[in-house]
Amino acid sequence: MSLTERGNRTRTRLLDAAEKVFAELGYHDASIVKITDAAGVGQGTFYLYFKGKQEIFDELVEDLNRRVRHAMSEASAQGTNRIDSERLGFGAFFRFTAEHPALYRIIRQAEFVSPGALRMHYTRIVEGYITGLDKARSNGEITELDTTVAAWALMGIGELVGMRWVLWEDGTPSLPEPVFEEVMALIQRALGAKPAPRRDDDRAE
Amino acid sequence: MSLTERGNRTRTRLLDAAEKVFAELGYHDASIVKITDAAGVGQGTFYLYFKGKQEIFDELVEDLNRRVRHAMSEASAQGTNRIDSERLGFGAFFRFTAEHPALYRIIRQAEFVSPGALRMHYTRIVEGYITGLDKARSNGEITELDTTVAAWALMGIGELVGMRWVLWEDGTPSLPEPVFEEVMALIQRALGAKPAPRRDDDRAE
Repeated sequence: MSLTERGNRTRTRLLDAAEKVFAELGYHDASIVKITDAAGVGQGTFYLYFKGKQEIFDELVEDLNRRVRHAMSEASAQGTNRIDSERLGFGAFFRFTAEHPALYRIIRQAEFVSPGALRMHYTRIVEGYITGLDKARSNGEITELDTTVAAWALMGIGELVGMRWVLWEDGTPSLPEPVFEEVMALIQRALGAKPAPRRDDDRAE
Repeated sequence: MSLTERGNRTRTRLLDAAEKVFAELGYHDASIVKITDAAGVGQGTFYLYFKGKQEIFDELVEDLNRRVRHAMSEASAQGTNRIDSERLGFGAFFRFTAEHPALYRIIRQAEFVSPGALRMHYTRIVEGYITGLDKARSNGEITELDTTVAAWALMGIGELVGMRWVLWEDGTPSLPEPVFEEVMALIQRALGAKPAPRRDDDRAE
């Protein structure tokens, strides 16, 4: 598929609208008309890009997954050691959650709408994470551990802490700093990691 | 509400049937007829116990929540120190997950069907957990930490490890032992806890 720049813009507009509509109404009550209305395009235009509701849902999960992984890997690549990378990666994850609260609601619906998309989402995040932990283990930056189990465990921490302190706190645009620091201390102990060097822009806001 | 013993049995049969039907078909495609068919009772009987689909869904979440908390607290109360209680509590959680894979699917649907039920589920589990961690912190069995943040983080570990190694492994009736041991080692480090004393019946199977 090759789209013009304008075509790409329209496609992005449809995905942004779908993110809002699926998160607000849920998959069952969402409709293509509601998505095209929210995107400000005609219904016929929708079918130039997607075959139907299921296809735009799957594309949306792929798209959100790609973006959250990109945000996390870009951030953690700046780290000077493993725990520093964890700080930056988790910081990016919590910011993404605050900006895209729909991610949780959409992923949870995928359990029924598109079980393959649900597994893909978690598995791809974990794969990148394992690579980073393996490297840190070889370098002696963290203790000897099963990096696959650790990656799933740490993703679980991010998921429920994000749910509790980002999603459930309507007025809060981001994870409270003391909660973030507690989470990082817990992760540092869990990984048996050395402390992060001090940074000026500590959470890289 | 006061039910006879026979009335209670029928109510339990309807809840068990609802657990299967909601997990298999999802809330939207589930119907009262499908639930009563699965329970082997007439449709009229359903309405003696529940007002409708939403009410039996909410009751089911309450019921599963009560049972998973009961299983975890019964088990962890046998622990001789904090990490021993963690072992027993997590063991019970993973066994419950293996026996009730519907729990995950039902809770995820609650996001849309009954958001209050979703929050209630996680919040009640965490409350009991915080009490145990507070006691362990006062006794010096774990390091100084924010027990609320730790409780949510550890619940996240259980949730995603259970999803990956119990739910997604169709042929596996329980969490593989080496994964369990890795998780427990990670949690012990995370809490800064002393090792558990050796037990004969180590995982209290």
